[in-house]
Amino acid sequence: MANIDLNSDLGESFGAWAMGDDVSMLSIVTSANIACGFHAGDPAGILSVLEEAAKRGVSVGAHIGYRDLVGFGRRNMDPSSTELIGDTIYQIGALQGLAKAAGTSVRYVKPHGALYNTIANDARQAYDVITGIKAVDPSLALLALSGAPIVEQARAAGLTVVCEAFADRAYNADGSLVSRRLPGAIIHDPKAIAERMLRLVAEGRIAAVDGTDIELEAQSICVHGDTPAAVAIARVLREALATNRVDLKPFTEVDHG
Amino acid sequence: MANIDLNSDLGESFGAWAMGDDVSMLSIVTSANIACGFHAGDPAGILSVLEEAAKRGVSVGAHIGYRDLVGFGRRNMDPSSTELIGDTIYQIGALQGLAKAAGTSVRYVKPHGALYNTIANDARQAYDVITGIKAVDPSLALLALSGAPIVEQARAAGLTVVCEAFADRAYNADGSLVSRRLPGAIIHDPKAIAERMLRLVAEGRIAAVDGTDIELEAQSICVHGDTPAAVAIARVLREALATNRVDLKPFTEVDHG
Amino acid sequence: MANIDLNSDLGESFGAWAMGDDVSMLSIVTSANIACGFHAGDPAGILSVLEEAAKRGVSVGAHIGYRDLVGFGRRNMDPSSTELIGDTIYQIGALQGLAKAAGTSVRYVKPHGALYNTIANDARQAYDVITGIKAVDPSLALLALSGAPIVEQARAAGLTVVCEAFADRAYNADGSLVSRRLPGAIIHDPKAIAERMLRLVAEGRIAAVDGTDIELEAQSICVHGDTPAAVAIARVLREALATNRVDLKPFTEVDHG
Amino acid sequence: MANIDLNSDLGESFGAWAMGDDVSMLSIVTSANIACGFHAGDPAGILSVLEEAAKRGVSVGAHIGYRDLVGFGRRNMDPSSTELIGDTIYQIGALQGLAKAAGTSVRYVKPHGALYNTIANDARQAYDVITGIKAVDPSLALLALSGAPIVEQARAAGLTVVCEAFADRAYNADGSLVSRRLPGAIIHDPKAIAERMLRLVAEGRIAAVDGTDIELEAQSICVHGDTPAAVAIARVLREALATNRVDLKPFTEVDHG
Repeated sequence: MANIDLNSDLGESFGAWAMGDDVSMLSIVTSANIACGFHAGDPAGILSVLEEAAKRGVSVGAHIGYRDLVGFGRRNMDPSSTELIGDTIYQIGALQGLAKAAGTSVRYVKPHGALYNTIANDARQAYDVITGIKAVDPSLALLALSGAPIVEQARAAGLTVVCEAFADRAYNADGSLVSRRLPGAIIHDPKAIAERMLRLVAEGRIAAVDGTDIELEAQSICVHGDTPAAVAIARVLREALATNRVDLKPFTEVDHG
Repeated sequence: MANIDLNSDLGESFGAWAMGDDVSMLSIVTSANIACGFHAGDPAGILSVLEEAAKRGVSVGAHIGYRDLVGFGRRNMDPSSTELIGDTIYQIGALQGLAKAAGTSVRYVKPHGALYNTIANDARQAYDVITGIKAVDPSLALLALSGAPIVEQARAAGLTVVCEAFADRAYNADGSLVSRRLPGAIIHDPKAIAERMLRLVAEGRIAAVDGTDIELEAQSICVHGDTPAAVAIARVLREALATNRVDLKPFTEVDHG
Repeated sequence: MANIDLNSDLGESFGAWAMGDDVSMLSIVTSANIACGFHAGDPAGILSVLEEAAKRGVSVGAHIGYRDLVGFGRRNMDPSSTELIGDTIYQIGALQGLAKAAGTSVRYVKPHGALYNTIANDARQAYDVITGIKAVDPSLALLALSGAPIVEQARAAGLTVVCEAFADRAYNADGSLVSRRLPGAIIHDPKAIAERMLRLVAEGRIAAVDGTDIELEAQSICVHGDTPAAVAIARVLREALATNRVDLKPFTEVDHG
Repeated sequence: MANIDLNSDLGESFGAWAMGDDVSMLSIVTSANIACGFHAGDPAGILSVLEEAAKRGVSVGAHIGYRDLVGFGRRNMDPSSTELIGDTIYQIGALQGLAKAAGTSVRYVKPHGALYNTIANDARQAYDVITGIKAVDPSLALLALSGAPIVEQARAAGLTVVCEAFADRAYNADGSLVSRRLPGAIIHDPKAIAERMLRLVAEGRIAAVDGTDIELEAQSICVHGDTPAAVAIARVLREALATNRVDLKPFTEVDHG
């Protein structure tokens, strides 16, 4: 029987500003990427989401980002290595403290936004994030973009790496994501999304935007929860997977050593 | 043979802005209260100070503060309980992560500035800080103002509490600190400071500002390092203690259970 | 023919986080209190709201607050006088710059949240805000809580002060607002709200929570736009005023010298 | 008689953190680039420096930067155009407000750090800064790197542009600055610095690092004040200029139309 993990970005409210429907998403996903305060998330709000995740047995990861609240961590930055290593450790540590208070623990790291995109290909910043993770807890897995150079870099450095596919994104023939600026980059039809992901889980293949078939390593599927439509898509996908006898469980419960 | 701990606030630089002479102070004190990023301290700078503390065997505490960089945590604030509990856990967790990366660990908590002064007497905010500490690690000691209500409150809640005296501050007859706004609040003469502290260690007594003698519980003495004069005073005090055969060691190595 | 101003807090989104329905509210109110970046509001978002306000002829005020993004300016703070004077000028100046770029200008100041409540009664902080306003532009009006000590203090200092009533709040017999912690503090029925405000405009009187009638000076009514229900209430109130031949116009167009 | 302007970055303290010797520098320079709060500077501190500048008749410019306190505006960022335009206007407006309160006014804009370097060559971000300046006050001059593409771009857009040379920096044969990472990038000898600048003022020429002579347009010379040595160099330069009958005055008092 096949299995897969569903992950989503949660805990991204900040003080009086709400974002996303965290409680609904925690009934859908098996892994929760929780904001750590640098791009989003305040301590009290993060703690509340962690308590809900703990109650539901959802696996918890540190969604670390650039220190850029107003830009929501979506703007490229060039921190020095000592800065990026420090920022990585600080955010993971802060989330570990809150997770302990919530009765759970941090199991993996998924960088956010511009940091996620940059380290996929930028070996220097990737090295800094990997160094930070290893310094605070080398048993933390890294959740990374399937096919990106960082996957091999982090594995060579001794980290467990888990690859993810994006449920609603189109892929180029070389396995990269179609740029959001191009038409067709985002898939909106819940049924099409479910079918693509079912095939990916069963066969490890997905149709690229040019019609060719490509192989994609994916132990986790990323879904969104920032709009009611996004939550609905995630729910349809979860049900389609369950109906087709795919076992939904946190990737941290599967051996990816 | 008597023993005492010397503590100081370190790691309070922020990015391009330097504060204090951390390296010198780490050769003087036995316990370092390290800023956690809310009132001061950036991750890379904190990590660097922690590495130096680890190398020298200086005990490390979390110097948590209100979230107020521009005010350096010196302005009163009224966070809600969920906010203050969350902020307490977040800061301790972040420092724990950095301490682990530096090869050491956080052993105690000393609140900073306005938070320190407020929780000395404000039972609600004190309760929130105590709750946060217990949630993240109930074995952490609390370093608190000798004689303040929080000492008994935290002990009743199960925390180990260590009391501190301030080397350069005058005391009122009731054991409280003379307000900085009053003349004579700060003692500047290194020799007078050393004599006062030697007597405090030997007899548990100190002369109040009105000439009367008062009893003061103190397992640690707080010294400053923000100016060259302050560093010099701390060094004179350390030497006077050593000369008088007072054993200088971290309070975390003494049983205060 | 009677006239009244309707004001609301706008521009309170921050980066990726949205708050309120600013465009709808700009079709209802005659004065817009625009966040200045310290409790809420980022420059690009503020500029966009200012452009919309300029297009619709809505009068613009600086909604200055404590420097506390995560607390949304709702937490008490005790800045020094030099800090509060500087913060007041900085926020007004920043909004003046953005208003100029948007083709409009800042006409008044309305402090936000904890700052609003504090300076209503705290003469020292009130003095600092008044000093800051006068230093940057003494022709700016101050929009303040009807009946509060700051009204006379600011008038004595030479500022034009305009008093506001809160459409959805219950009043005590002494003219103060019923605390939000007490039952009945918030009035939810749009029709009741409209009737209370119509009477206030016509007679200068309102029923207090104990049933007594009180006099209230009000040249402006504050309405909210943070929820769809709040926007609906504001719209009902506007229509009730128009139907009853109350002239809706910015208080800055009425002589309050 | 030749004339020249001396400019320096001031107002870069932040809350409890001091930086530079602003009072000394205000007795040396004729133009002060004042931090606006995004990379450095708090309102009360900025106001205090502005008051001192006003008293001494030093011309005031807005030293705008990326929104990155912990990185001191020295890290590259990629704000969107709406963000960068808004940030430019906001910072200039805030400084205008504080300048008005201090009895002076903002006369020019000099971007800081990574923003300065980026817009020297990046036409998109340069366009955004130019757009922001023109929106808030098209009479503000832009102080820019001599020889950089932005000089012509801003002039074509209608701004007055004043070019600056760096007193202590070596130049490449193409007129660009020698990278700080290369040996010889920084000139430390006060006498050599003074001689280079005297020749630049007299002849418009300077020796490049490879020994060739290059032409350099410069109506202002940038000096530093962040260390006692830097202040001393600036003072030596000022005296050398005065001794050689170069008239020191703000470039804003010279027609650069």
